[in-house]
Amino acid sequence: MKSGRTAVALDGMGGDQGPGPVMEAALDFPDDVDLMLVGSVPVLREHLGSRPLPGHITLLDAPESVSMADDPLAVTWGRRGSSLLVAAQAVRTGLADAMVTPGNTGAAVLAAAVRLRRVPGVRNPALATVLRGPGAGQTVLLDIGATVVAQPEWLVEFAVMGVQYARARLGVPHPRVGLLSNGHEVTKGGPAQRDAHLMLATLPGYVGQIEAYDVLSDRVDVAVTDGFTGDVMLKTYERTLDLTALAAVSAVRSFSGSLADRRARQVSQAVRDALAADSGGVLLGVRGVCVVCHGAATAHDIAGAVRLAADCVRADVTGGVTAAFAVARRTDRIAG
Amino acid sequence: MKSGRTAVALDGMGGDQGPGPVMEAALDFPDDVDLMLVGSVPVLREHLGSRPLPGHITLLDAPESVSMADDPLAVTWGRRGSSLLVAAQAVRTGLADAMVTPGNTGAAVLAAAVRLRRVPGVRNPALATVLRGPGAGQTVLLDIGATVVAQPEWLVEFAVMGVQYARARLGVPHPRVGLLSNGHEVTKGGPAQRDAHLMLATLPGYVGQIEAYDVLSDRVDVAVTDGFTGDVMLKTYERTLDLTALAAVSAVRSFSGSLADRRARQVSQAVRDALAADSGGVLLGVRGVCVVCHGAATAHDIAGAVRLAADCVRADVTGGVTAAFAVARRTDRIAG
Repeated sequence: MKSGRTAVALDGMGGDQGPGPVMEAALDFPDDVDLMLVGSVPVLREHLGSRPLPGHITLLDAPESVSMADDPLAVTWGRRGSSLLVAAQAVRTGLADAMVTPGNTGAAVLAAAVRLRRVPGVRNPALATVLRGPGAGQTVLLDIGATVVAQPEWLVEFAVMGVQYARARLGVPHPRVGLLSNGHEVTKGGPAQRDAHLMLATLPGYVGQIEAYDVLSDRVDVAVTDGFTGDVMLKTYERTLDLTALAAVSAVRSFSGSLADRRARQVSQAVRDALAADSGGVLLGVRGVCVVCHGAATAHDIAGAVRLAADCVRADVTGGVTAAFAVARRTDRIAG
Repeated sequence: MKSGRTAVALDGMGGDQGPGPVMEAALDFPDDVDLMLVGSVPVLREHLGSRPLPGHITLLDAPESVSMADDPLAVTWGRRGSSLLVAAQAVRTGLADAMVTPGNTGAAVLAAAVRLRRVPGVRNPALATVLRGPGAGQTVLLDIGATVVAQPEWLVEFAVMGVQYARARLGVPHPRVGLLSNGHEVTKGGPAQRDAHLMLATLPGYVGQIEAYDVLSDRVDVAVTDGFTGDVMLKTYERTLDLTALAAVSAVRSFSGSLADRRARQVSQAVRDALAADSGGVLLGVRGVCVVCHGAATAHDIAGAVRLAADCVRADVTGGVTAAFAVARRTDRIAG
């Protein structure tokens, strides 16, 4: 454990909206943490305006920067003076204890890899986050974007790192680790998941392959996946959360008077109705309509699936697909 | 378009809870659709109990069944009398217009492929669903589980099928198609996405690579991905929706009196607070703490990321990871 004050190097140039939000955050931040705003000092000063710079905030000059649009590799060639590298260098030299960047993930990962360097034994760093929900406990999810496609060996590394993170961050002494897959059965997952599953067998706390439901539950403390899948999962989680929050608001607005339990249930139902997906999946590409719903489908789900199937028949979904491929075969190109 | 009555073959045996929910759904279903309950007739009768069988419901005997636990291949060997195959056969022979199963997805896909057969030109059928949200429009998402790893060519097929589905089901004349990836830039995605992206260039309505946020927005009408990623995205969406709905309820319960706009905002905030993920990702595996947040991070997000970074320093996350890999190197095995 570190004692004394913590110093954080804050990349002031990386974000989509420039230094504005970073400056705002820094000025509002309690002074129990020392902040190093890294960026073009003139630009930072400009955003500071007439406001005085609190004693716990210092400016660290970095003439260049890497934007979201830049190729991550830009950080390694030409931009040696970039705020990303300067921030990383500050951590490497001990000037700062940590770096924070709102910028280009790929560039940040690269900057950290070249300046902070990797932990010996780690082939691929991973980005981790913690998902939490009411009664769902907290779950470390990694990788959420440091990698794209992950080799089985990398997934094992992620698991080891995730365990350490869950211990240090969540205080879970013996974290349970799951490998994110499309189901629990051993037959699930792609080659990478199946190989990683075998390799993970010796990892203490490994519970096996899990599905996305389990990540947002109290079944595991750590969920391991590749950066591509992690990115999709996290963004889906966040966007759904936003949409649901909006739905909740409109639901609440639509009710007057005090909200008793009945009303609360109505709110819940309204939120679900506003966002609920199909109660089944339509199998496209076969000569006939086929709807598949969850094994755990309720009567309500199944009724919805039947309605869905009937709709597909009336709309002649199969005919449309068949026609499209007939055209494709004739013209030997894709039919829109 | 089909005219006249629609007949749906309903697999009564596939679900986790047996025929109960299916029977319930069938009996409650309006009689504008003919239903064929497929399964062991004695078992179905038992679940029917003393209730009379409405005229629009018939029982179709299938002595065998395929459970969720079964290897999907079970449907092709030995279980020729399974409710899945009998239901598919009913559609093939025209006895039914559609089949619905709450069962084993892999087996259902296989049963449909062997009995209904694939549309000529389609190498791989795909499962599609529609996601919708307030102001987010509706988006067809496929594949959600008919495949696992998808070849680029398959993704192109999915796109073509998705376009047809969006037209037929959502009535969108010229659907916009996106390829689900981890970002918009051409450099994003894995090999499969990058190759598919090039192949999709000629598809009318193709807008390029999209991220999960875009799927739950009005930017596209069709989102194309492999079955593994689609499964993760859909389950994340559904689970987050449930958690958020619960959060909304508790939020509403916690307020008394009438809910004005201010209260509504409080509900929204409570919902977000209850489920919000970290405002940044912690990069594990480098010699130092590095938190990366979204390029679009707000001041609030960045302040959270700074706090997160400080917490990681105090908890010595890096030391934990470093130690674990030191052990791993010494003992040449994974340290939990």
